[in-house]
Amino acid sequence: MADINTAPAPDDNSLEGLYGLTDAVIHDVQEAVDSGDADAVGWIVGSLHPADVADLIECLPSAQRDKLESLLGGDLDPQVFAYLDASLRDDLIDDLEPSKLAAVAAGLESDDAVDLIETLDAGDKQAVLDSMPAGDRVMVEQALSYPEDSAGRLMRREYVAIPAFWTVGETIDHMRSDADLPETFYGIFAVGPDHKPSGVIMANRLLRSQRTVPVADILASGFKQIPATMDQEDVAFLFRQYDLAEAAVVDASGRLVGVITVDDVVDVIQEEHDEDILKLGGVATDDLYEAVAATTRSRLSWLLVNLATAVVASLVIGLFQEQIETVVALAVLMPIVASMGGNAGTQTLTVAVRALAVKELTARNALYIIGKEVVVGGVNGMIFAVLTGAIAYFWFGDILIGLVIGLAMIINMFVAGLAGILVPIGLDRANIDPAVASSVILTTITDVVGFFCFLGLAALVLL
Amino acid sequence: MADINTAPAPDDNSLEGLYGLTDAVIHDVQEAVDSGDADAVGWIVGSLHPADVADLIECLPSAQRDKLESLLGGDLDPQVFAYLDASLRDDLIDDLEPSKLAAVAAGLESDDAVDLIETLDAGDKQAVLDSMPAGDRVMVEQALSYPEDSAGRLMRREYVAIPAFWTVGETIDHMRSDADLPETFYGIFAVGPDHKPSGVIMANRLLRSQRTVPVADILASGFKQIPATMDQEDVAFLFRQYDLAEAAVVDASGRLVGVITVDDVVDVIQEEHDEDILKLGGVATDDLYEAVAATTRSRLSWLLVNLATAVVASLVIGLFQEQIETVVALAVLMPIVASMGGNAGTQTLTVAVRALAVKELTARNALYIIGKEVVVGGVNGMIFAVLTGAIAYFWFGDILIGLVIGLAMIINMFVAGLAGILVPIGLDRANIDPAVASSVILTTITDVVGFFCFLGLAALVLL
Repeated sequence: MADINTAPAPDDNSLEGLYGLTDAVIHDVQEAVDSGDADAVGWIVGSLHPADVADLIECLPSAQRDKLESLLGGDLDPQVFAYLDASLRDDLIDDLEPSKLAAVAAGLESDDAVDLIETLDAGDKQAVLDSMPAGDRVMVEQALSYPEDSAGRLMRREYVAIPAFWTVGETIDHMRSDADLPETFYGIFAVGPDHKPSGVIMANRLLRSQRTVPVADILASGFKQIPATMDQEDVAFLFRQYDLAEAAVVDASGRLVGVITVDDVVDVIQEEHDEDILKLGGVATDDLYEAVAATTRSRLSWLLVNLATAVVASLVIGLFQEQIETVVALAVLMPIVASMGGNAGTQTLTVAVRALAVKELTARNALYIIGKEVVVGGVNGMIFAVLTGAIAYFWFGDILIGLVIGLAMIINMFVAGLAGILVPIGLDRANIDPAVASSVILTTITDVVGFFCFLGLAALVLL
Repeated sequence: MADINTAPAPDDNSLEGLYGLTDAVIHDVQEAVDSGDADAVGWIVGSLHPADVADLIECLPSAQRDKLESLLGGDLDPQVFAYLDASLRDDLIDDLEPSKLAAVAAGLESDDAVDLIETLDAGDKQAVLDSMPAGDRVMVEQALSYPEDSAGRLMRREYVAIPAFWTVGETIDHMRSDADLPETFYGIFAVGPDHKPSGVIMANRLLRSQRTVPVADILASGFKQIPATMDQEDVAFLFRQYDLAEAAVVDASGRLVGVITVDDVVDVIQEEHDEDILKLGGVATDDLYEAVAATTRSRLSWLLVNLATAVVASLVIGLFQEQIETVVALAVLMPIVASMGGNAGTQTLTVAVRALAVKELTARNALYIIGKEVVVGGVNGMIFAVLTGAIAYFWFGDILIGLVIGLAMIINMFVAGLAGILVPIGLDRANIDPAVASSVILTTITDVVGFFCFLGLAALVLL
């Protein structure tokens, strides 16, 4: 450890020394790759944590990435595959023989192996499974029999279970003698003769208990048994809600089949959040590492939907061409009404989508929240009615234009508040992910209502 | 355990039996609250996990919530405060005497106590600290001396440390005899005489090792020492990157001062993500449980910024009033150009903001990503140029209008791609959170460029 008096003070706000993939390391790898020095590349990569190797592969330009892979040959730690971004991993897997891929899968824990194999197409999947050792293959096949994104896919099949009637001493002796324990675990499951779990003993609790104590006396409180078919979002909710480190997964008949640990749940939480953010922004999947063509294609469909809604808004404007020709100020001012409605609605919608995701917005408080958003929308509508009315009046010197835009603003921001909360709740009730479709429906509503109210009121009042 | 043959099959997709706060429980509490039955309320609330009690308080209408609190009197488990939504917790705390609040803080682990006390204003904070037992007070004061959102605020000060020269047997004997161990821990830290940590021994590793083995031989690999001043976002990054369950926190001279566990990091990840989603939607803080007035106020400032940018866009339109008067189709079509640019830019921006947050977008690959986004924007621009050009031509029967809108579309979607990536990167470089300001800057750019290109080209070509 560095002496505080002689060593330079560490920069406490940097990850220096904690995050393995420093600029210096990347620079060294790039030099070694460019000079084709396979030994140097292997040496540096071998010294890194698999998660850092994954980051290294992700951050290299694609030409250097290919060269790195060919220099490493087959010498990539299987763990690296568990950490790689999905689109890059798929590229890498495509280049591998089934037998090679089976070896990679065999080098992973069962949950990571399932994660790797589940994305393959049917033919490749079978080829890889056929090349795996029988024990591993059965494990992976069983996991694949559970639905996608379920607890059964997420769980690890390596866990420690002991008969529920043992003592602390018997348990410790068993653990000292059994070499085939998983690398890391936090708890030991007590099971009955039917392999149904009766509870979990945390390792630290075992350590501090006398050898004669029956494990049944030191079971952790609040033991959770998660059905293997439960959706991973619900699993993540339970882990967050009860600060779980580990939970037992049981099959339909209540038998222990695996264990989910909190580090896997952290990945799920990250994944679900990324999805929510991307969907709200109109992006189907994280395409940072995708090629140009794939990215263009994946974003196109969303833009097509938006074109359709933009044309609908234009059709509404088209109804009032005569009025715009007479009072051109209407064309100048109309985007303000639509834009303010869209922004106010998006605020409400964002709060609602997040609250639905974390189960804070429920049938119970929905009415109260809807009422609140409508009032907030109405009040903000009145404030901005006065502001925009004044701007329009001073700009075009016409009190009626000020009045019309003010009235339209109140109506549109009221509607925006209502739609901002009702659209996500409605989609959620219809089992459609509110993060995907809420935004486009909302802005269509606020555009149409905004243009129609403003131009329609103008037609009534001004002309 | 239910017998599979007689008990109804569990609904595997529900949280029934796993999430304590069922509809039935809420219904019972509401009945007990309405009838003023303090015993029944206390009995039900006492049977719930503190996290569920927090959810219960959150989901009740505010009148029932107040009545529940008065029925419970002071009998609320201190742990509930650790789980409550911040705005509701602040309301509850405001009603408590400093001495009562000090008792609550004393009933919490040190990190939760800090979390509770750090939000108080200076006077209340001092009053609470003065009422706390000296030992707890010093702990909290030390934690408060670290910056907000730092590892020092996040860490728990209760941990297990042993001399680095001990054996497994000595460690187990110590743990069996020391009653003052924390409730839960996963690892035991080996420290030198200067209290600088040399590594961590996972509890499960200790359990499976023979008593004579020195702990120095079974230290976990990849031991991480986190400086107490490190930002919690970086802490979360390290936990995710290396699948940590627990990490040591050290002060400026490298001495062990606390431990961060993964359940706290899960909360940080959740918090940071919520912030990102809300900021992208133009909401400063989660205001679901805030009162109407506070919500209206907090959203107002963002809407004011949007009004300013909407007026700027209108000023651009105002430059071309003459052209709009002559060709009113321009007013009908112009929102399409602006809207498509805004949506395409938002897609890019969302991917960029997320990639910056998870450190996937760095100085190293920025140029490549910028180039890619510009190409994607350009290609999509050309596709939509053809589409909108055709729509405009068939609608208004004028090939020149089709040409003008097509050209404007290409320019605006190219600019949208460029701005969608450059704005977040630029803000990040300037140490401004890209999630907050990116969106408004981007849509201002796409509105101004969209209107200016379309109307300006029309002025050149059509008139």
